[in-house]
Amino acid sequence: MKGKFVTIEGCEGVGKSTQLRLIREEFAAAGREAVFTREPGGTPIAEQIRSIILDAGNSEMDGLTELLLYAAARRQHTEEKIRRALEEGKTVFCDRYVDSTLAYQGYARGMSKEVVRRLNALAMGDVKIDLTIFIDVPPEQGFLRKGGADRSDRLEAETEDFHRLVYEGFCAIADEEPQRVARVRATGTKYETHEAIMKILRERGII
Amino acid sequence: MKGKFVTIEGCEGVGKSTQLRLIREEFAAAGREAVFTREPGGTPIAEQIRSIILDAGNSEMDGLTELLLYAAARRQHTEEKIRRALEEGKTVFCDRYVDSTLAYQGYARGMSKEVVRRLNALAMGDVKIDLTIFIDVPPEQGFLRKGGADRSDRLEAETEDFHRLVYEGFCAIADEEPQRVARVRATGTKYETHEAIMKILRERGII
Repeated sequence: MKGKFVTIEGCEGVGKSTQLRLIREEFAAAGREAVFTREPGGTPIAEQIRSIILDAGNSEMDGLTELLLYAAARRQHTEEKIRRALEEGKTVFCDRYVDSTLAYQGYARGMSKEVVRRLNALAMGDVKIDLTIFIDVPPEQGFLRKGGADRSDRLEAETEDFHRLVYEGFCAIADEEPQRVARVRATGTKYETHEAIMKILRERGII
Repeated sequence: MKGKFVTIEGCEGVGKSTQLRLIREEFAAAGREAVFTREPGGTPIAEQIRSIILDAGNSEMDGLTELLLYAAARRQHTEEKIRRALEEGKTVFCDRYVDSTLAYQGYARGMSKEVVRRLNALAMGDVKIDLTIFIDVPPEQGFLRKGGADRSDRLEAETEDFHRLVYEGFCAIADEEPQRVARVRATGTKYETHEAIMKILRERGII
C-alpha cells in the first residue's frame, strides 16, 4: 500500500470528530489529499448491513450474529473504500475502527476477545493500520462530567461501568501495541490536543 | 442437547428435498415430532441478511463479505431455531448446512477452506451435527444428464467444472469425517434411496 492508514479511537465525547475536522483543515490548507471516513463508510452494501444491526425490530439478534455483521460491513468498507484509497497513495483517516469493536464488544460486552480479534483480522485482510491515535480521556472526566450522557444515543445511554470497561479496553490495547497506538492525553484545549496529534503525525511520518 | 441434528448434503438435483419429504412422512406416520428446516430457516433476521446477499444490485460485494454474511445468517438460524429445537429434544433435519458452504465457497469458488471452516465453527458454536447424509450422485449422472441445468437458477447455471469441484468437495469432506458423514449412493429409485437413508437413521440411533 502506498498510502498511510490512521485510525482515531477513544470513548464517547472525547472530541474525535473535532480532531478529525482540525486535521482535515490542515490537509486542505496544505493542498494535500486525504480520505476521511468512518464505518459503514458510505458504501451501499455496508450501509444495508448496518441497517439490519440497528433495526430496533431485530431484538432477537444473537451477539455473535451482530459481531459477524459488523465484520461483514467492515470488510466491505475496507475493500471498497480504504484499500482503494491506500493503493492510490492517499492518506486515510478512519473515525473508529477495529479497536472500538474490541473495546466495546470484547472488553465491555464480554464477547470473546479472541473471536473479536480474529474477525477484525479477517475483515482487514492485508490492510495494515500505520498509526492509531487513542484520545485518552477517562469517561468520568469526559462526557459523564459534561452534563452526562445523551439518553437518546444508544451507546451513551449505557451505564458508567460500561464506559469504564470500554476505556480500560482501549488502555489495554494501547499497552499491548505501543508501536501502533499513540496515546494522546487530551487534558488541555482542543487546539492543544490538535497540536499534540500533529506532532505525532509528523514524527510517525504520516505527514 | 437432547435432540439429534441431521443435515442432508449433496449436489444440485440429487433429490435432497424429495428425501426430506419422505422422511417427514415417516415421522408423521409414526407420530414423532421433528423439525425440518433449511437456511435461512425462516428467521426474520437471517432472511434480511440473505436478501442483501441475493440482491443483484450488490455486484460490488467482496467474496469475504459474502462469507461473513452467510455465517451471520447461519448463526442466527442456528441459535434461534436449531438450538432451541434440539434443547427441546426434537430431531432436526436441515437441508444443506456447513458442508455446502465448504464445498461451494471453499472447494468450488476457491475461498480459503481454513477461513470457511473457522466461520462455520463460529456460527455453530456448541451445536454438533450428529449425522450428515451425503446423497452421492456425481453431477454428470445427476441433473446435467437429466436435460441439463436450469439456466434461471443461479447455482445450476454454473459450469460443469464448477459442479464437479462441488462434488469433489463433498467427497473430500465425507472421506475426512467418515464417522459423521454417511454416503448414500443414490443409484436406484427414490424409494430405494429412502430405504437406505432410513436404515442409516436407525443404525445411528436417530430414530
